[in-house]
Amino acid sequence: MRVRVSPSAQHMNPRTTSELATPALLIDIDALNNNLSTMSTRHPGSKLRPHMKAHKCTQIARMQIKHGHNNFTCATPRELIGMALAGVGADLLLANEVVDHDRLIELAKVSKNTRVTIAVDSHETINAAARAGLCDVLIDVNVGLRRCGIAPDLAGKLADTARKAGLTVRGVMGYEGHLMMVDGDDKRKQGVAKSMSLLVQAAQDVGGEIISAGGTGTWDMHDSTGISELQAGSYALMDTHYAKLNLPFEQSCFILGTIISTSKDWLVIDVGLKSLGMDHGNPSVFGFDVMFCSDEHTTLVAQSGALKTNLKVGDKLRVTPAHIDPTMAMHSVAWITRSDEILDCWQIDLRGW
Amino acid sequence: MRVRVSPSAQHMNPRTTSELATPALLIDIDALNNNLSTMSTRHPGSKLRPHMKAHKCTQIARMQIKHGHNNFTCATPRELIGMALAGVGADLLLANEVVDHDRLIELAKVSKNTRVTIAVDSHETINAAARAGLCDVLIDVNVGLRRCGIAPDLAGKLADTARKAGLTVRGVMGYEGHLMMVDGDDKRKQGVAKSMSLLVQAAQDVGGEIISAGGTGTWDMHDSTGISELQAGSYALMDTHYAKLNLPFEQSCFILGTIISTSKDWLVIDVGLKSLGMDHGNPSVFGFDVMFCSDEHTTLVAQSGALKTNLKVGDKLRVTPAHIDPTMAMHSVAWITRSDEILDCWQIDLRGW
Repeated sequence: MRVRVSPSAQHMNPRTTSELATPALLIDIDALNNNLSTMSTRHPGSKLRPHMKAHKCTQIARMQIKHGHNNFTCATPRELIGMALAGVGADLLLANEVVDHDRLIELAKVSKNTRVTIAVDSHETINAAARAGLCDVLIDVNVGLRRCGIAPDLAGKLADTARKAGLTVRGVMGYEGHLMMVDGDDKRKQGVAKSMSLLVQAAQDVGGEIISAGGTGTWDMHDSTGISELQAGSYALMDTHYAKLNLPFEQSCFILGTIISTSKDWLVIDVGLKSLGMDHGNPSVFGFDVMFCSDEHTTLVAQSGALKTNLKVGDKLRVTPAHIDPTMAMHSVAWITRSDEILDCWQIDLRGW
Repeated sequence: MRVRVSPSAQHMNPRTTSELATPALLIDIDALNNNLSTMSTRHPGSKLRPHMKAHKCTQIARMQIKHGHNNFTCATPRELIGMALAGVGADLLLANEVVDHDRLIELAKVSKNTRVTIAVDSHETINAAARAGLCDVLIDVNVGLRRCGIAPDLAGKLADTARKAGLTVRGVMGYEGHLMMVDGDDKRKQGVAKSMSLLVQAAQDVGGEIISAGGTGTWDMHDSTGISELQAGSYALMDTHYAKLNLPFEQSCFILGTIISTSKDWLVIDVGLKSLGMDHGNPSVFGFDVMFCSDEHTTLVAQSGALKTNLKVGDKLRVTPAHIDPTMAMHSVAWITRSDEILDCWQIDLRGW
């Protein structure tokens, strides 16, 4: 067991969750392993390019490597540079547009030792990548999400521009994020098929071998879409938002809180909106309704209507986040657990930009 | 000028905001100074106990000291311990309940050099404070917000318990957070008067000289409530949520973003929900409607209906957060600006718990 603790997080080496100062981010090692196995069985090896933005933790990436995946997706230069400097991953994709020259220079530096590919969707992003000395790009194609990506019918021409700038175009990517939470498997699957037909058409115009797309919400809808790899991240840790889709992935990440105040009608834990991604709404606590979250608190009411009399100030409760990605970005360490036993402490080492 | 930069934030010493890697948190020094002056004119010296949870930055606290305030409010042990170790503030209040023994021991340690007072609202929190060797407490009284605090009529008895445990009871605190956003000044003022009458009654039962309450939303409603000090924090930096109340405080904090992608109908900046507190909804960008935020992006549509043709990939825009407190907790540094000139870089040094 190797417990490395940041100075502000803890003052001792805790053996069980009852000894943890809170709020504390917990990862259930068995649930995490189950999730990684389920995904790698369906999308083995290079068929999956796990997305680092969901957990920002090189230790989890190392587990994903043990499950057979050597190529990774990143959302920020910091994530990719951190992976490269840690020597984790063989083929790293920055699935995002970057124009900052200093950061592109850093990306080019680490590309001497690790294959680095960056998304481009405009002349500006192509020129910025070429000027910094990057070699490999994917053409980012808009497949329906109103965000980045060039229109599918212009992708081929943009690939020509990239090649003229001296870049190697490895293929295309396109994220069908607008479909992740579409209600109903059939409707979602139809949407995915339509989006991916745009991407595959663009891929023919662009050339290259990579067609990268998808996410946890559409993980089982790509068997005949023609993509070469799936970009999924949330499946490893999960959240209550993705849980609505009844996926075969378990919740493996929780925020541990301590009851710091009780009253006749409610109790208060020390987990609040500075330790939880709130854009998908309130978190969940088993057996309780969440009244509201404030900066450092969540107020809970027992679902039976009466307060559970066996709970008292100092007791601990597990909170399930509504959105895992921003939640991970708020914590410096993850405590690795089996039931209430602490097995390890991992740095969430790729935070920031 | 002293520019200290964290390794991941920046690779050079930028002179203007156009040179900043993004997302980057900006603080307008003149707007900040104006806000501090407006507040200290109304609540001079010890009449204000500025709340550190809103900015988590000892450099801003030093500015608040220059405006005459030497006593501070904190929400987490980390905030208070960081202030004490930095030698900032003479009288520090942890306006929150803590039962973790190791953290209380650390608080007791720093209380040898700085006056440290902690909120208690139960036998458990009293015993935990006494056992760790802390000396000074306030009785936290519930004045209507469904969160921490003992019922007003039980406060006197709890103060007796605290004194029997060897603690000095300096008075009471009670946060009327449920009233901060009540629509209509008169209605809000009536609510404040009612809440504070509960607190003042409890203060008579409790004894001591401190009656601490209030916040930015009720900053001008305490002239005759009987409190001895106001706990306000958001007034320094502000956000779109508090701006709805038409307070005399200016927006002084922005998140700078870079346009990384454009299309016919929208543009995308690299500021997303990992760099913005999202519990109060989407941020604002002058001249644009926010379509949606994702982890690392915000999609914008020009309010005229047509995309502003003078904006292109690489240009920068300022985003105004909807909630300042969690936004500050997501950034490691603040760039101190006057117009587009960078004057300094301050660590946001009190993040975490």
